[in-house]
Amino acid sequence: MPQIARKPFIDVLDGERQARPPLWMMRQAGRYLPEYRATREKAGGFLDLCFNPELAAEVTLQPIRRFGFDAAIIFSDILVVPYALGRSVRFVAGEGPRLDPLDTPQEIATLAPTADLSKFEPVYEALRRVRSALAPEVALIGFCGAPWTVATYMVAGQGTPDQAPARLLAYREPQAFSKIIDAIVETSISYLLGQLAAGADALQIFDTWAGVLPPREFQALSVEPTRRIVEGVRARAPDARIIGFPRGAGAQLPHYVERTNVNAVSIDWTSDPALMRERVQSKVALQGNLDPLALIAGGAALDRAIDDVLENYARGRFIFNLGHGIQPETPIAHVEQMVARVRGYKG
Amino acid sequence: MPQIARKPFIDVLDGERQARPPLWMMRQAGRYLPEYRATREKAGGFLDLCFNPELAAEVTLQPIRRFGFDAAIIFSDILVVPYALGRSVRFVAGEGPRLDPLDTPQEIATLAPTADLSKFEPVYEALRRVRSALAPEVALIGFCGAPWTVATYMVAGQGTPDQAPARLLAYREPQAFSKIIDAIVETSISYLLGQLAAGADALQIFDTWAGVLPPREFQALSVEPTRRIVEGVRARAPDARIIGFPRGAGAQLPHYVERTNVNAVSIDWTSDPALMRERVQSKVALQGNLDPLALIAGGAALDRAIDDVLENYARGRFIFNLGHGIQPETPIAHVEQMVARVRGYKG
Repeated sequence: MPQIARKPFIDVLDGERQARPPLWMMRQAGRYLPEYRATREKAGGFLDLCFNPELAAEVTLQPIRRFGFDAAIIFSDILVVPYALGRSVRFVAGEGPRLDPLDTPQEIATLAPTADLSKFEPVYEALRRVRSALAPEVALIGFCGAPWTVATYMVAGQGTPDQAPARLLAYREPQAFSKIIDAIVETSISYLLGQLAAGADALQIFDTWAGVLPPREFQALSVEPTRRIVEGVRARAPDARIIGFPRGAGAQLPHYVERTNVNAVSIDWTSDPALMRERVQSKVALQGNLDPLALIAGGAALDRAIDDVLENYARGRFIFNLGHGIQPETPIAHVEQMVARVRGYKG
Repeated sequence: MPQIARKPFIDVLDGERQARPPLWMMRQAGRYLPEYRATREKAGGFLDLCFNPELAAEVTLQPIRRFGFDAAIIFSDILVVPYALGRSVRFVAGEGPRLDPLDTPQEIATLAPTADLSKFEPVYEALRRVRSALAPEVALIGFCGAPWTVATYMVAGQGTPDQAPARLLAYREPQAFSKIIDAIVETSISYLLGQLAAGADALQIFDTWAGVLPPREFQALSVEPTRRIVEGVRARAPDARIIGFPRGAGAQLPHYVERTNVNAVSIDWTSDPALMRERVQSKVALQGNLDPLALIAGGAALDRAIDDVLENYARGRFIFNLGHGIQPETPIAHVEQMVARVRGYKG
């Protein structure tokens, strides 16, 4: 019988602490890499790259080749879900995404209740290509945006300070707002199942803007829709491994973990270590949480920041990562410094 | 002997819960009020208004006359401290503050170690005028910015996403950064003592950007400088009542309270109620935390949000407020709705 290679990243999600924490970086296929910038130029626009299986697979693999990370995350974007829901999505260079705003009950009534799932095919094809190119001990992560975070872009048509347009609409028109959430939940379940079928070993749900919500809305708009996605995925794929990332949830994270049934949570760099250890890591795996600015700073400050993260969390089930995506101006030498230091950890 | 009028706001800071929580709003003297806009127009620029004792006193009193709040907060700005430190400070209409950036060790070496305290005189004069015009049961609040938050503007020269320039400088040049913090600490102690002498009944320290800091930096750049200010003020005014507002501190708030010795903390609208009650309100008074967007939304959503705040916190030592400043587009009728509902609370 052939031996099945272990994946340290997956072992942590399954509850087995690793002496040397597995390591990857959010947005590791990104503009800080010259090889990414070269491929991106070939592809044309950002969405062209997302929907080009060959090139999307290529940029997904680039950071694995360069740094030997323990997990690859498929190159894509959380706004492919609104795109499959028939919304116009474009990326303006240097400014970020632009969608047709969905900010009145009248507009929302026109939203298609079901998505054109065939639009996800290029992402699945990219996953298949990555999976077949990847060493067996490296995990492959699929992902989607959490309904609240995706809705903030669909409502405002772009990124907005404190996500005010979406929060205001949720206060003023809760029923219309639910329609948006419901459409994203249903589409995300199909999308995540498709990613699993195409070779993803684990899934991450990014709720980048969870941290702006008051407790009632956090429960209704972040926790509950995420719980429904996890439940919907597991109804068809009972062993699906899912990582939640309600960024900025802070002291509400224990509640999020209990209700959503995720296998792990990613935490941002401002998290309180004692609370995270005692009330979160005691139940699920943690992933995080180096400040991306420490990675830009480098030097002794970076070493100290890495050591803080390891000291805070590496005694439990832990995956080393950043607290948010790596920034374009990050020197590659600093990533190398981080990789060497985490690999050298004697736990 | 004349009876000294009780101030419910002060009684809460002194540890006595009030059946009907005292009430005021951050940025209550602001652009949502037509009388403010009219006075502002008379004054010229924003800083002209801050440094005009007659008009600053007038706008401070306007929301008290209109809504009968339990506390007035002196109209001023946290950037008067860099101004007294000799930095150029101007306000660009619609864009916010502009300062000469202080982003290299060479620049920082030129920073004056002591401030020209006479520049605070107009603020003190405004406080005296407000105090003499205010009913005895209404408290008067003086304030300053916390060193970290003030430093974010001094370093970048303006407001910045995630306060990246200041965070990066703190990583790269910790000693130079300390010089900025030290200058703000010393100046703020003098400034707060001057405000007490001019009639302030309590002081609030605004650390609006505390929430972007990792634990080590939160301790070094938010908690410790605030602790030094509290200690420095109490060395000369032992009974000084001080409210801290490390916005976004989340689960790190219990630590902040223990170390800084503040009498109360203001909390933002994303705070976790159980943690706040059990580990913060058990030790000091809480102030907050209605979402300013609920106040814009009005209607049933506003009622529900007000009731959530009261239910979460009004059984303990509590001052009703917003979780952040009131926004210019807020309808006055919604403020009236809030005032009536909080006044009608049967605790």
